[in-house]
Amino acid sequence: MVAPLNVGIAGLGTVGSEVVRLIEQQGRALSARCGRGVRVVAVTARSKAKKRGVDLRSVTWAKNPLAVATDPEVDCFVELMGGVGDPALSAIEAALRAGKSVVTANKALIAKHGFRLAGLAEQHGGALNYEAAVGAAIPVIKTLREGLAGTTINRVYGILNGTCNYILTRMEQESLSFAECLKDAQRLGYAEANPSFDVDGHDTAQKLSILASLAFGTRVAQRAVYVEGISSIAPEDLRAADELGYRVKLLGVAVRTAKGIEQRVHPTMVPKTSSIAQVMGVTNAVTIDGEGIPPITLVGPGAGGAATASAVVADIADVARGIRALPFGRPVARLRATKKAPMERHEGGYYIRLMARDLAGTAATIATRLAEQKISIESIVQRHPDGKFDGNGASRNASPVPVILITYATSEDAMRRALQAVQADKVITGRPQVIRIEKN
Amino acid sequence: MVAPLNVGIAGLGTVGSEVVRLIEQQGRALSARCGRGVRVVAVTARSKAKKRGVDLRSVTWAKNPLAVATDPEVDCFVELMGGVGDPALSAIEAALRAGKSVVTANKALIAKHGFRLAGLAEQHGGALNYEAAVGAAIPVIKTLREGLAGTTINRVYGILNGTCNYILTRMEQESLSFAECLKDAQRLGYAEANPSFDVDGHDTAQKLSILASLAFGTRVAQRAVYVEGISSIAPEDLRAADELGYRVKLLGVAVRTAKGIEQRVHPTMVPKTSSIAQVMGVTNAVTIDGEGIPPITLVGPGAGGAATASAVVADIADVARGIRALPFGRPVARLRATKKAPMERHEGGYYIRLMARDLAGTAATIATRLAEQKISIESIVQRHPDGKFDGNGASRNASPVPVILITYATSEDAMRRALQAVQADKVITGRPQVIRIEKN
Repeated sequence: MVAPLNVGIAGLGTVGSEVVRLIEQQGRALSARCGRGVRVVAVTARSKAKKRGVDLRSVTWAKNPLAVATDPEVDCFVELMGGVGDPALSAIEAALRAGKSVVTANKALIAKHGFRLAGLAEQHGGALNYEAAVGAAIPVIKTLREGLAGTTINRVYGILNGTCNYILTRMEQESLSFAECLKDAQRLGYAEANPSFDVDGHDTAQKLSILASLAFGTRVAQRAVYVEGISSIAPEDLRAADELGYRVKLLGVAVRTAKGIEQRVHPTMVPKTSSIAQVMGVTNAVTIDGEGIPPITLVGPGAGGAATASAVVADIADVARGIRALPFGRPVARLRATKKAPMERHEGGYYIRLMARDLAGTAATIATRLAEQKISIESIVQRHPDGKFDGNGASRNASPVPVILITYATSEDAMRRALQAVQADKVITGRPQVIRIEKN
Repeated sequence: MVAPLNVGIAGLGTVGSEVVRLIEQQGRALSARCGRGVRVVAVTARSKAKKRGVDLRSVTWAKNPLAVATDPEVDCFVELMGGVGDPALSAIEAALRAGKSVVTANKALIAKHGFRLAGLAEQHGGALNYEAAVGAAIPVIKTLREGLAGTTINRVYGILNGTCNYILTRMEQESLSFAECLKDAQRLGYAEANPSFDVDGHDTAQKLSILASLAFGTRVAQRAVYVEGISSIAPEDLRAADELGYRVKLLGVAVRTAKGIEQRVHPTMVPKTSSIAQVMGVTNAVTIDGEGIPPITLVGPGAGGAATASAVVADIADVARGIRALPFGRPVARLRATKKAPMERHEGGYYIRLMARDLAGTAATIATRLAEQKISIESIVQRHPDGKFDGNGASRNASPVPVILITYATSEDAMRRALQAVQADKVITGRPQVIRIEKN
């Protein structure tokens, strides 16, 4: 029997404690699966005194993360502290430099330093596993890195932030405002006191940049991601989407185009019949479009201590079994710099909601401005104050009336120019609401 | 650079030809991913002359599968002939005995001989990869074997047969009969001329037995699977399911119970809101319930040349990279014999549709018989000839009237005894329709 894999863990919060518990509880099963034992030999955490419900008596308490990472007893360093910089970063670097394998759930750190860390791992022969960084227990990293190794991937997109999906689900199902649902999410612990990282799309952008790297063989580049959050979404958008056969989701989308790799995070209208549209509440989902094959969708818990720990332990098990995939599926020398497709050249359909001043020719003016930009309209409907749609474009009273347009595929650029012209025409009040449509 | 992995392929049908094409087309990407080249060096197929659209000029044509399997040039033997016995079986055995790795898409063979073949692979050090055998490109084998290595799995269930799901989807959406939809499926090439293997549930049973082995660490035992097909399902069942908040799917379900591992294939009512209920047409899906974590669902193409080839090439890439998971995730010595939970002791809710003779007391008689078996009724409704439900149990005319019951959880045994008693009471005509309910 091979010697057991000695694991050192930095960070004993919910996830870290659960990892210790799982390794203990799954001891026999894990050693059968891996052909060797797996045991925690060293840990570090801010507080040694905190009650964690796990037995750490036989484990060395190291004075800091770096001490765990460089402990000669430790074969596999598990970083569960979080944070984009030190102490996590320098501890991971030290572990990799010492030839150890590293397992982390730290999406921010992988999104920012993943390329450089993958180089270190490759150079020194250790693994760098981060399944838990995206979609927690959903095996999306393994699927992109190994399960679809023989397939050219054209698009990967998903619901990568449970907070946003929870808010949009509540807004849709209960006709509530964004602010109300955010407050509930905060009360339930789904959203932070400062919710910007989640609701403005930055969390999704970090995860998307990691998926894009794996899917397209490019260097992780969070800066290449166009980001819009969900705070501007109103219940009337969700209602209109429903009537038009769509749902609104905050998607991260990475797609191969003739102009480069497009990476974007924004509220998106998805057909109600798509797998991704069915995903409700805090659940996450990722859809992968491989060349010549129908889409594959993975759905599951994108957060939570147990789900995250499940992925961390699977990553540790891979290390124990000697499975060492390259961190981004390819040698770093083969990872190309991301050729960013400019957002202005994005092509797709659009949902546009305008508040038309109640002038007879408003619809005609809007249609003309869109036609000037060669944008074809799939449907144009005007919502009367009674809440019902009407396709005839006629207006009935003097206050602004919502007009909702769905366009056929056009470019972002053309759409922006058309809306600027409409605004200059002063036939609408306020800013137009624009939601991109993603076809499945 | 390590020497390239030499692949030998037996079987050049749709899948085999696509594997050759993918390896050629993905050559550079594959070698980057694997750290070594991957090339096809030997093939065999029934017809050498058949047009396949791939270049096989530099490849050795072997006289039979065994010759490919034992060719000293071949490192990895890929079996794509199908069939539960020879020549596939003896060729795979010979390849494993020679220490080669084997990749196959052959579910029937893995379901029947998987345990013994896993032993051979383990003994001689080769891999035995079969991702394509269940759910084609959906990475469900890898997910159970590696991605959830740290998680105790309590249940795995899914839509594993596209033909059945296509038929049930058409029946539901267009109110057609089973026979009509089967005919269409045959016309479209989704169903065989002899459809029994698919529609009677045997294909699902083979796949389920493989998933159960991976999930629970048991020996594959297709005989331990209880099987019912979909031919008895009527459009009125699907309509009633819809009105009650369910959909009917042919599920394979493997679940850990106090009495052992329950493995069953049967038409199943699933809540309309579940991920699995959204899966329409030929698409497959598998849901995995891990201890303490919300369900993970994988959705995608369960058949088709390109989707199957994608999984085969990913399996080959794992061999090339030296990733060798144990075929069933654990050493064969640790795979327990399946302790089969008897179907009579299955516990769950039931949908029952009876044709009541139009006697005043029918509903009361049925309720009494169920009560004698301690079965609680969640709802009882009677469908009038106008097609509308009525909760009051009153009857309006003299011809038999459908009565639909939903029970709370009870045992299969109790339910069967109650229905026997109802039949003996002669208050119904024909046989009761029974569909088990699976909660998510």
